[in-house]
Amino acid sequence: MVKRKGLLLVVSGPSGAGKGTICKELLKNNDQIKLSVSATTRKPRTGEVDGVNYFFITKEKFENMIAEGEFLEYAKIYDNIYGTPKAAILECLEKGQDVLLEIEMQGAAQIKEVYPQGVFIFVLPPSLQELKNRIVGRGTETQEEIDKRFSCAFEEIKQIDNYDYFIVNEDVVKSAKEVESIISSEKNKVNRYKTNIIENFKEEL
Amino acid sequence: MVKRKGLLLVVSGPSGAGKGTICKELLKNNDQIKLSVSATTRKPRTGEVDGVNYFFITKEKFENMIAEGEFLEYAKIYDNIYGTPKAAILECLEKGQDVLLEIEMQGAAQIKEVYPQGVFIFVLPPSLQELKNRIVGRGTETQEEIDKRFSCAFEEIKQIDNYDYFIVNEDVVKSAKEVESIISSEKNKVNRYKTNIIENFKEEL
Repeated sequence: MVKRKGLLLVVSGPSGAGKGTICKELLKNNDQIKLSVSATTRKPRTGEVDGVNYFFITKEKFENMIAEGEFLEYAKIYDNIYGTPKAAILECLEKGQDVLLEIEMQGAAQIKEVYPQGVFIFVLPPSLQELKNRIVGRGTETQEEIDKRFSCAFEEIKQIDNYDYFIVNEDVVKSAKEVESIISSEKNKVNRYKTNIIENFKEEL
Repeated sequence: MVKRKGLLLVVSGPSGAGKGTICKELLKNNDQIKLSVSATTRKPRTGEVDGVNYFFITKEKFENMIAEGEFLEYAKIYDNIYGTPKAAILECLEKGQDVLLEIEMQGAAQIKEVYPQGVFIFVLPPSLQELKNRIVGRGTETQEEIDKRFSCAFEEIKQIDNYDYFIVNEDVVKSAKEVESIISSEKNKVNRYKTNIIENFKEEL
């Protein structure tokens, strides 16, 4: 039997492309995939549970963890810091468990630097117009924010080069199935497991 | 919509690993995949149909086609020549149709030289012992041939480096599904389609 390490699945893309809904759909049908939980220094909101929505930690602890290199990536957003703790993820991967990370594009780029063997998936809207409709439809952003996101979107799409796969998100069920196929095929990649394969058969000689 | 060219799926591996049965199972459930038909100079056997089992052509025609570079690969086996005609395959790929080629390892290596953008899949037996059992079970080979195939198998497995994917063929239905996932994920690969993707969105600006 070929021993397979878990995959770090990094799902990113422009805001409004639908990475969040794809990840939810994927997890619904694949309970063997572990969703990575971020750490943050911001206070929990009502209903948020430590270890589920986020790991809520103090600023001092967060800064110590940064100094110790304990994050795959982190970013300061206004007064708070958000980050992806490394140890828990690497432990899962070592045990053969796949880990899913939904993250904005700057975070994905940082992860690519330190863990290039991750599987980097870029979620695209069917069109820029559709992206705009979705952001407007949410009703959570001001007109100024909408315009800014929209004008960034094409520049963001040009960064697709840093990713292994793209998903054109027209239908969330279809998109999640495409991610499932990516996971399956990555587990059949020769360059991930070739030493393993050859050693396996060598033992029989 | 991202325009996708067809994929050339090259399925190979040691004799007895089961590439033929996987391809049959795959085609049964995916009638959009076209099986490549080889050309040969040997005479048709009873029941064989020109254009279905093989393209049966004369030695003169075959040699002219070689001279004109009209094969993706070819090999002389005893007194006959076998080859994979290029034109029909490239035409299908251009139209977006996927083409499946089941071929022995030397042929696969030749195709890799001229069409590296193909998807190269290596079919492995679960173990060398299982490979031997299968070859013996067929009852079509002499003891000498069996011993020769078996002693080649490990050397052949070391050539796995030239392939993109491996399939450990324990169960043909599962193996065919793994090939389906490979096909799906290859159609989501950024490096196959990135120019296409960016041009697509650019048109909207």
